[in-house]
Order: sequence, then C-alpha cells, then structure tokens
Amino acid sequence: MMRFQELSQEFTTYFNKIHFPEKPESLYGAAHYMLEDGGKRIRPILCLLGNELFGPVKPDTWKIAVALELFHNFTLIHDDIMDKAPLRRGRSTVHAKYDESTALLAGDVMLLQAYDNLNETDPAYVQTLIRLLNKTGREVCEGQQLDMDFEKNASISLSEYLHMIELKTAVLLAGSLQMGAIAGGAGETDQQLIYDFGRNLGLAFQVQDDWLDAFGDPSTFGKLKGGDIVANKKTFLLVKALESASPENKQEIKELMFYSGPDKVERMTFIYQESGVGQAAQEAKNYYMERAYQSLERISVPAERKNALRELAIYLLEREA
Amino acid sequence: MMRFQELSQEFTTYFNKIHFPEKPESLYGAAHYMLEDGGKRIRPILCLLGNELFGPVKPDTWKIAVALELFHNFTLIHDDIMDKAPLRRGRSTVHAKYDESTALLAGDVMLLQAYDNLNETDPAYVQTLIRLLNKTGREVCEGQQLDMDFEKNASISLSEYLHMIELKTAVLLAGSLQMGAIAGGAGETDQQLIYDFGRNLGLAFQVQDDWLDAFGDPSTFGKLKGGDIVANKKTFLLVKALESASPENKQEIKELMFYSGPDKVERMTFIYQESGVGQAAQEAKNYYMERAYQSLERISVPAERKNALRELAIYLLEREA
Repeated sequence: MMRFQELSQEFTTYFNKIHFPEKPESLYGAAHYMLEDGGKRIRPILCLLGNELFGPVKPDTWKIAVALELFHNFTLIHDDIMDKAPLRRGRSTVHAKYDESTALLAGDVMLLQAYDNLNETDPAYVQTLIRLLNKTGREVCEGQQLDMDFEKNASISLSEYLHMIELKTAVLLAGSLQMGAIAGGAGETDQQLIYDFGRNLGLAFQVQDDWLDAFGDPSTFGKLKGGDIVANKKTFLLVKALESASPENKQEIKELMFYSGPDKVERMTFIYQESGVGQAAQEAKNYYMERAYQSLERISVPAERKNALRELAIYLLEREA
Repeated sequence: MMRFQELSQEFTTYFNKIHFPEKPESLYGAAHYMLEDGGKRIRPILCLLGNELFGPVKPDTWKIAVALELFHNFTLIHDDIMDKAPLRRGRSTVHAKYDESTALLAGDVMLLQAYDNLNETDPAYVQTLIRLLNKTGREVCEGQQLDMDFEKNASISLSEYLHMIELKTAVLLAGSLQMGAIAGGAGETDQQLIYDFGRNLGLAFQVQDDWLDAFGDPSTFGKLKGGDIVANKKTFLLVKALESASPENKQEIKELMFYSGPDKVERMTFIYQESGVGQAAQEAKNYYMERAYQSLERISVPAERKNALRELAIYLLEREA
C-alpha cells in the first residue's frame, strides 16, 4: 500500500467521529449527512503528506486536516445550492434531501467548525494557519463567482479560464500542503515551493478532468462521458476551441450549444479532436505537471522523502484511459 | 452626546473603508452594497464599551468590533436569503438586488473577512476570541434553524421560544461585550458577568421588539404596526397567547392566522390585550432588564464606569411609545 493510501485510511478513522452537537437535529443532521458522503479526502491527505515531508506528523496536523476537510465540505454544500445540483457522488445533495435554507446553514456551521479545529493548534503558528485559510477561502469564493459569471458570458479567454480554475480548485490543494508543511516546520522558501507544487498539481488535475470528460474511458473515469458537453459547461476544451478553432468549427460549436440530440457529445468531441484542443489540453496538463515536479525537486529535503508526494501526483494525474 | 453615541460615530468613520478587493466586482460589489446599508452598529459599540469598562480602548478592539459587524452582516445576508426577504431597512436585500448565489457567496466572504480581522489581534487572547466567535456563530445558526423549524410547527412552548431568541439574537450581543472585555483585560468572573448582562439585555430587547409590533407607536418605532401579526410570525405574544389564552381566544387566534382581512392586526391585538400577554411581555422584559442590571452591578469596577453601558441599555430598552 502506498503511503498516501495508508494516511487516507488513518484519516478516515480519525475523521469518523461526531463533529457537531446533537441538537437541533434539523441542522446538524444535515451537516452529518454531508460528511457521511466520503469522498477522496485529498486535502487532508495533502496536508498530512505536507507535514511528513519535513518531519514526523504532529497531533496538530490531524486537526488541520480535519479543518481542511470541513472547509472543503462547506464549499461543496454551498456550491451545490448555487449549481442547483440534485446529486453528488450518486447521493442526493444536502439541499435536495433537506432544503436550501438548511443546507445553507449546514454549510455555515461546517465553516465555523473548520475554524474551531484550526484554532486549537500551536500558538506559534495558529495565526499563520488561519490567515492562510482566510486567503484561500476568499480565493475559492472568487473562483466560484467567476465560474458562475463565465456561465453567463459567451466569450472568455483561456487565461481567464485558467485563472478561474486556479482559484476554484488549485489554491485549496496548495494551501492544504502548505498548512501541513507549516506544522511540520518548513522554512518559508520550502513553504512557497510546496504551495507551488500543489497549485500546479491542481491545475494539471483540473485540465485533465476536462480532457477526460470528452476523451476518457468512462469505465475507469467513473463519470458519464460528455457530461460537461451536454451541460455546455465551460471547460479547457470548449474555451480553447472557441478561441482557436477554424471559423467553420467555431460556428458549429455555437450551433451545437443550442442542440440536444443524442449525437451532441460525439459531434463536439470530433470538433475538439479536429481543432487539436484535446492535444492542447494534454500539453497544458504536462506543462503544469512539469512545473509541479520542478517545485517539488527544489524543496530542501532528501529526494527519497519526496516519493510519497510523487506517488500521489502520479495516482492523481495518470488516471486517463 | 452620550458615550455610546460618540463611539458609534467613531466606529462609523473607522468602518467606512474598503473591506474587500476590487475584483471580481460581481462578488465584492454585493458585499460592499450590504455594508453601505448602515444599521445601528450595536455589536461594535457593545464591544468598544465592553473594553472601556475595564480600561482604555485598545487598537485591537477596533479590529474585533469590525469583525463583529462583518459577522453580523454575514448572518443578515444569509437570513434574508432563507426568509426570502425583499427589503431590509427600506433597501433591496442583497439577493434581491443581485441574485441568491451571489448573496450566498457575499455572505461567505463576509464571514471569512470577520475571521481575518479577529485573527490579527494579540496572540495572548486571539485564540480565546476566535473560540468565542465560533461558539457564538454556531449558536446563531442554531437559533436561525430553530426559528425556521418553529415557523412550520404550530405548537411551541414559551421556553422553546425564549431559547430560540437567546440563540438567534442575545448571544451575539453578549459575545460582543465579552470580546471587548477580554481585550480590555477583564478577569474571567467579570467576563461572565458582562456576558450575562448582554444576554439578558438581548432577551429584554427582543421581547420588547415583539411587544412593540403590536402595541408600539409606529411613528417612534419605525416599523409598520402589526407586521409580525400579518406574517403570522411566532413572537412572545403569539406563543404566550397560544399557551395561556382562554379556549375561545385560542380558537379565535387559530382562525385569525388563516385570515387576512384589514382588521386582522386590530383583532389579534385585542386578544393579546384581553389575554394579558401584552402585560406578560412587559413583565418578561422587566425581568430580563433587572437580571441584566444585576449582572452589571456585580462587575468589579467602580460604579461610575458603568454609566455608559447603563445609558445604552436605557436607550435600547426604553424606546416604547
């Protein structure tokens, strides 16, 4: 078993406790329902690995890992309300099972509980950690707002898109690693390097996610093929194609966005292929991966200690068909 | 000018600054729109007075006061979404002017910004302050959830109602005073006493607010008479009447709740009067006021230093017609 898988199991055991009071059940039942959902627990694992890169995992780091998972779930509950999503990983979303008001409040208490865990760490760095969560949290909110703004805006540039996914996805992965590194005693340069590793890893991951939607093998990817295409979701592929495809292909893309026939996914994928945007996404992913590995390389700890993070990166980024 | 009025003016100047980045304007414009709203700034004033009771106001206390005002606005934005309220103090609510998703996110960033201000205070007490905001925040969420639950529930007891308003309204006033007292150097017993002063003040204030809706003079109260009655809102008066009125009056109340004629307010107020619940509300308010003054009395500072808090209490609690 790889190190990140061991930590994942340990975290699951550690996290599997009562996070909230019993009453009012109408509120905390909804919060617990969300946490039962499972998920990959990537952020706590990054946090634990970020600590372990620099020294033995501290008791504090488990609290930080819990805070990060609670924070992430806060964003998911609120995002699902905004996106009016009925399902998350095959289960009803919180607002669908309860109602929007309860889900809104369950998200709020989840965020308060994240701070409560973070606040109980060593006074030597607690303010640094909270400052970092505040900054990251603001950026995640900005990313979600831009994502919503972009859905209403026909034309956005690739660099605007990349900025949005950096905020919405990458910075929390980066912050998770940095928080673990802070508890582990990393110096400022190493903290910046591990943050950059996480940021680029996050960008590579999201670009790959976009690519997999059109080109992945649904049996290994675990999502319905072409879900983004059906929903006209702004992805790396769509934004890049609207920027760089031939005038004829651009025209067809615009028409396809008003079309909902059964061959929509196939036709859009064909244009993506023909315009070379599938290839461009792979190149972008490789570029960010390369940048991530370069940052990891430069961290001032012996190379063999970096294996666990490298293994996790490979696991996350080489899941294509 | 009374001391709390001076502090209110000073706080308004201090608070009147840019709290958020410029971009994305779609998000932070909504947050700033909320803050332009004004309001009475009761919580920051309580915080400043809580400090001043024990010593000169520290620079930290201004940051705590800002955090409390941001926190309060976070709860208002989210409550307005849940209550589907179109107006707050005569202006469109945030979700009405923008949209629900933007308002939800604007509330979230407001809460993050509250922590950001609180987090920049003296390491000697920063964790104590954050712990108190976390606890208070959870209680405010619980209060809002209970309030929503009660609206769906025909029969709740007076003690359930009082517990709800304690959580929804009183604890944040209490916490504001305690936070100021912490920064001002109060000992633990005095902290508990000033907290109890605020909690009872908050209960007295809310019971009075309920009473004013039916019995106040609209020209001085500043709200439409009988707004709670028209909306069938659970108030001290309604809950108490459903608990203690005569069987005939209880029956008429239940009927009036399905009635929307122009004399609804007048008829309901008549029953309140006849059942003695107006009187009961006045007695409850006086009881909580008395308790508040007793706690204030016991705080171990010279009596003349308590004048500012006493003046504020009188201002808040003696505004009836």
